[in-house]
Amino acid sequence: MKRPVLVTILGASGYTGVGLYQLCLGHEGVRVSATSAERHAGEQLSSVFPRVAGVGDRPLLSVEEALDAPADVAFLCLPHEAAMAIVPRLLEQGRIVIDLSADFRMDTAESYEQWYKVKHSAPDLLSRKVYGLPEFHRHAIRSARLVAVPGCYPTSAQIGLAPLLTRKLINPQTIVIDSKSGVSGAGRKLTQRTHFVETNENLAPYNVGRVHRHVGEIEQELSRLAGAEARVIFVPHLVPMNQGILSTMYVDLVRSATTDELMGVFREHYAGERFVRVAPHLPETAFVLNTNYADVSVRVIDGTNRAVVFCAIDNLVKGAYGQALQCMNLVCGFDEAEGLPV
Amino acid sequence: MKRPVLVTILGASGYTGVGLYQLCLGHEGVRVSATSAERHAGEQLSSVFPRVAGVGDRPLLSVEEALDAPADVAFLCLPHEAAMAIVPRLLEQGRIVIDLSADFRMDTAESYEQWYKVKHSAPDLLSRKVYGLPEFHRHAIRSARLVAVPGCYPTSAQIGLAPLLTRKLINPQTIVIDSKSGVSGAGRKLTQRTHFVETNENLAPYNVGRVHRHVGEIEQELSRLAGAEARVIFVPHLVPMNQGILSTMYVDLVRSATTDELMGVFREHYAGERFVRVAPHLPETAFVLNTNYADVSVRVIDGTNRAVVFCAIDNLVKGAYGQALQCMNLVCGFDEAEGLPV
Amino acid sequence: MKRPVLVTILGASGYTGVGLYQLCLGHEGVRVSATSAERHAGEQLSSVFPRVAGVGDRPLLSVEEALDAPADVAFLCLPHEAAMAIVPRLLEQGRIVIDLSADFRMDTAESYEQWYKVKHSAPDLLSRKVYGLPEFHRHAIRSARLVAVPGCYPTSAQIGLAPLLTRKLINPQTIVIDSKSGVSGAGRKLTQRTHFVETNENLAPYNVGRVHRHVGEIEQELSRLAGAEARVIFVPHLVPMNQGILSTMYVDLVRSATTDELMGVFREHYAGERFVRVAPHLPETAFVLNTNYADVSVRVIDGTNRAVVFCAIDNLVKGAYGQALQCMNLVCGFDEAEGLPV
Amino acid sequence: MKRPVLVTILGASGYTGVGLYQLCLGHEGVRVSATSAERHAGEQLSSVFPRVAGVGDRPLLSVEEALDAPADVAFLCLPHEAAMAIVPRLLEQGRIVIDLSADFRMDTAESYEQWYKVKHSAPDLLSRKVYGLPEFHRHAIRSARLVAVPGCYPTSAQIGLAPLLTRKLINPQTIVIDSKSGVSGAGRKLTQRTHFVETNENLAPYNVGRVHRHVGEIEQELSRLAGAEARVIFVPHLVPMNQGILSTMYVDLVRSATTDELMGVFREHYAGERFVRVAPHLPETAFVLNTNYADVSVRVIDGTNRAVVFCAIDNLVKGAYGQALQCMNLVCGFDEAEGLPV
Repeated sequence: MKRPVLVTILGASGYTGVGLYQLCLGHEGVRVSATSAERHAGEQLSSVFPRVAGVGDRPLLSVEEALDAPADVAFLCLPHEAAMAIVPRLLEQGRIVIDLSADFRMDTAESYEQWYKVKHSAPDLLSRKVYGLPEFHRHAIRSARLVAVPGCYPTSAQIGLAPLLTRKLINPQTIVIDSKSGVSGAGRKLTQRTHFVETNENLAPYNVGRVHRHVGEIEQELSRLAGAEARVIFVPHLVPMNQGILSTMYVDLVRSATTDELMGVFREHYAGERFVRVAPHLPETAFVLNTNYADVSVRVIDGTNRAVVFCAIDNLVKGAYGQALQCMNLVCGFDEAEGLPV
Repeated sequence: MKRPVLVTILGASGYTGVGLYQLCLGHEGVRVSATSAERHAGEQLSSVFPRVAGVGDRPLLSVEEALDAPADVAFLCLPHEAAMAIVPRLLEQGRIVIDLSADFRMDTAESYEQWYKVKHSAPDLLSRKVYGLPEFHRHAIRSARLVAVPGCYPTSAQIGLAPLLTRKLINPQTIVIDSKSGVSGAGRKLTQRTHFVETNENLAPYNVGRVHRHVGEIEQELSRLAGAEARVIFVPHLVPMNQGILSTMYVDLVRSATTDELMGVFREHYAGERFVRVAPHLPETAFVLNTNYADVSVRVIDGTNRAVVFCAIDNLVKGAYGQALQCMNLVCGFDEAEGLPV
Repeated sequence: MKRPVLVTILGASGYTGVGLYQLCLGHEGVRVSATSAERHAGEQLSSVFPRVAGVGDRPLLSVEEALDAPADVAFLCLPHEAAMAIVPRLLEQGRIVIDLSADFRMDTAESYEQWYKVKHSAPDLLSRKVYGLPEFHRHAIRSARLVAVPGCYPTSAQIGLAPLLTRKLINPQTIVIDSKSGVSGAGRKLTQRTHFVETNENLAPYNVGRVHRHVGEIEQELSRLAGAEARVIFVPHLVPMNQGILSTMYVDLVRSATTDELMGVFREHYAGERFVRVAPHLPETAFVLNTNYADVSVRVIDGTNRAVVFCAIDNLVKGAYGQALQCMNLVCGFDEAEGLPV
Repeated sequence: MKRPVLVTILGASGYTGVGLYQLCLGHEGVRVSATSAERHAGEQLSSVFPRVAGVGDRPLLSVEEALDAPADVAFLCLPHEAAMAIVPRLLEQGRIVIDLSADFRMDTAESYEQWYKVKHSAPDLLSRKVYGLPEFHRHAIRSARLVAVPGCYPTSAQIGLAPLLTRKLINPQTIVIDSKSGVSGAGRKLTQRTHFVETNENLAPYNVGRVHRHVGEIEQELSRLAGAEARVIFVPHLVPMNQGILSTMYVDLVRSATTDELMGVFREHYAGERFVRVAPHLPETAFVLNTNYADVSVRVIDGTNRAVVFCAIDNLVKGAYGQALQCMNLVCGFDEAEGLPV
């Protein structure tokens, strides 16, 4: 029997960090050697998340302490900027890095700096990273040393649009993405926006147009899928629920097609994919809650040459820590679904 | 001093009926002479809605009994089909009818039958009704005998799009309306869809494409505003909250324009309107909760000839009973805002 | 016609301050001369609460500026400590002070300091304040210069227990108060506890036993009602909803009684009270949402000498700003219900 | 290697049935041979619960068809009355029956009939059943042929009170149980009470006093634990969330004690129990969501001889299908935690 893969989780006091930790506990081939949380260093993880008491409580270290722990794989659940500050060291230490932050998602320092408004401190690594969306980059992920796990909104957009873009069935320049997200997408940090009373019983759009940082990532990756420049209008909305993203996407077909035909295209595109379900019904976020599934469906609108694509994911699982573990399974040679919730 | 206007409310055991009743209680020029609720005839209104105890509890009558009560104005908060069955009698009795159902919203029996799948029993009255959206039909409402109060989604769509359609600034054939509604829009009837556990912590699209009955009404009225045939893609979504609609609308500009310019157009269009607020911020449903306001805003998307229009209303107030009372104020010569929540 | 009463609202950027402001807008005898919010001085109220745009937007002043504005009545919606720091000046200025903070609720500086852990800076005023629960102190409030508006939990406890305590029907030493509150009770300040994701889909007890600051106020006032020392076990719980308190209270009867008999006692006690409804059904928070009502009911438990009393209020209205306005109506000689939502 | 245990799930279209089914899919020693749902016979399980698509969809049979399927163990997720109608046949067929309904929880037909108001059709089996709360009846469950899985409220009450009752530290006659439950406890059936709009943003008590059917079960089992007749006041409340129960229990100590001392008693009582966590913090329902844990804690109230006990469980997991699987693990000789979520 193989020795377990040793992993460290840097940034374990956020929703993605603790979720990833709990998945690792249930993964038979993995052992967690360290968990860090800068602001809570010295405390137990259960003091931040009482739900892990008895399951697998452990001390929270500072990032520096965690860097010293033995590890084959380091998961980074840190804010952007913090991640790129330590990735070079982790790679030098010989760790495989699976980064859930945005720091290595963009292909160039210029585009990173355009969208994130900070200078990139490790620009040479951008071209060495692999973009961690297994359904489209499985082969490259298997041999990656640095995986940039996609953002939650970009995951839903790519899984929803890839079948149509790769077959050049839609105009990549006129895509509308109307996304609705649960509040955990905003993280655990305190903001007026995420105060219970302001968000409960409210539906709020935010960062309209070309403002949200995910626009750059979405357009970069949709362009790659389309083999042509893609351009999107992206409007995210905050929904009074904890988890889940539904992206409703409006596209212009370049030739007439029927719903049945496009559903066939989707089924063909995702044949054999374990975590994408081409749903005859309309996807709803509750159907994928706490799972690594992406549910997709498409409808051609009668009497128009337009279609609506739906993609529902759990923003924390397929949109973050589930997808990260899926990447690790590929990198480490495990079954791709090992340890993932269905 | 004038004698109060006598009103009856037929269908007082639904959310719109009881809400309208409570507004009437606070309206100094109105006295309610009867409230009906077929299934609860003989009970007190407070047995269905304990919140009205002490405020103005009263007996629920059968529809037949309520028809006999003296009334200047009859409000109909009945399901479609039930409304058209009694409107002719009410008009013969000399009542002014303010109908919150869908039965008289369409201009022709054909279009009604197309969207509602039932034969219209009073087709000759369709051309005599006035469509009760005061911001656009104020003059006609003042002398109406039969007012068809708009649907909730159509109200948000029209208020959001009218400034651009009437000035022919957008293509009326390529409008996308992505609407998000609280659950009270589905009424008080029991369905699996509105069961708490199925709707809470869930975001669900439904009736995609040209399926929802409001599509016909939306296209009819947008066409009137545009002076040209309008065509929409309409996708409603159910949001886990009680009240509120946000419509996010994607439109193609026929010439280039800036956000500032279009905001100016909106402000000009709604100058002097007491219940439409042209908001510099993005509208959120909580800002209009329990009020008769419609909040609208518009953003041109950089580098495109497209814009996004937002309109938030409370589906029960501006989307139903508030708008109905606003119509009554016009018909009866009251101040238009009398008795309306702000 | 009388000139309107001029009022200032100090602390208008919290939930109670803005709610009070909106009530004042609808009160025909009142004009607001100034609103303050230290952290937002210089901004418009609508920048904090977009919902007031168009209704009655106005500038937010610093406290010092607001103190200079002409005023007959000053409402204080400030945190404790901040209130007592300025009450003496307001009284010297000849204002009537209606204080929604906790600073003047206790009868002695000792008890204040015991529960609030800070030194009282105006102890001589404690004996001059009137406790602002109109149902029990109506006469005194009419001539008060300083009204201490009760806390939300204490309001529900007193209204629920007064009929039994004043008649000495229960043991005042063995009262259990199990309260459930919406999240707005914790205010608008950011805390991990009120972060949406931590509170949504969660039911959490807090401050168990003799820890919550309201225990002192509850026992002081229940003792006054009982004419004997009262002692309570108080356990508050946070409920995933915005507004509303339900207190479920378990009491030991000193003699056997029936539910009917005790319901009669409640009806007699509250006969003529406009804002207390003795409900035959069990009170629910939704029945009193956005109203100034307290709904109460009592059940004797078969085969025991114990009873359960329920009291539901809206924590922001009857539990805070509605009750404050009710007090102002008494002080200023208005009808007690003027401007209050029902 | 042993052949898998064959199980049937009768009543798979409710929340407990589908939850149990999903646990069984992840249990390595179990294979599901049939799932029934009378009203949905002939449909696929995924047509009722789209979330199981791809995971392990399967046809729904009628109960009669499911009775013919090979099975070592039959789980009954049926309403009361329906369960007792088929249990005798299942036992004759040699199946082990794990019944999640209330039909076999009571010790005598008289008490069943008193609380459930229907005649028991298999009274002789009542004395042969084992009450399925593993923490207290582990030994008996191992050799049971008919296991009556406890109700959700009774589970929380027993786990919370057992340490104090068995040591005779409290008066068993004066127990107050104030319980708060998520809405899934009311099942999937449509009722006005569980309509989203009526339950959302509402906190509602129901079935006060000696009315709720669980009172009988609670008193029967607490009496067994106490070795003396127990008597409770039980007040359940409906909370606007999907899952979770928190029971707040008020007890009279028979001698003085400290919180530390009683916490020690709890830790000792539950030493070695994998699914009971004696929590230093106050239990919250979110900490046990989707797990089989019961979190308990106790506080002595200063200056009184009373204590408050808290117990939080997920009403669907430890309160229903998780506990059922835990029982099956014991009956079938698996590790007690096999397949259970933590």
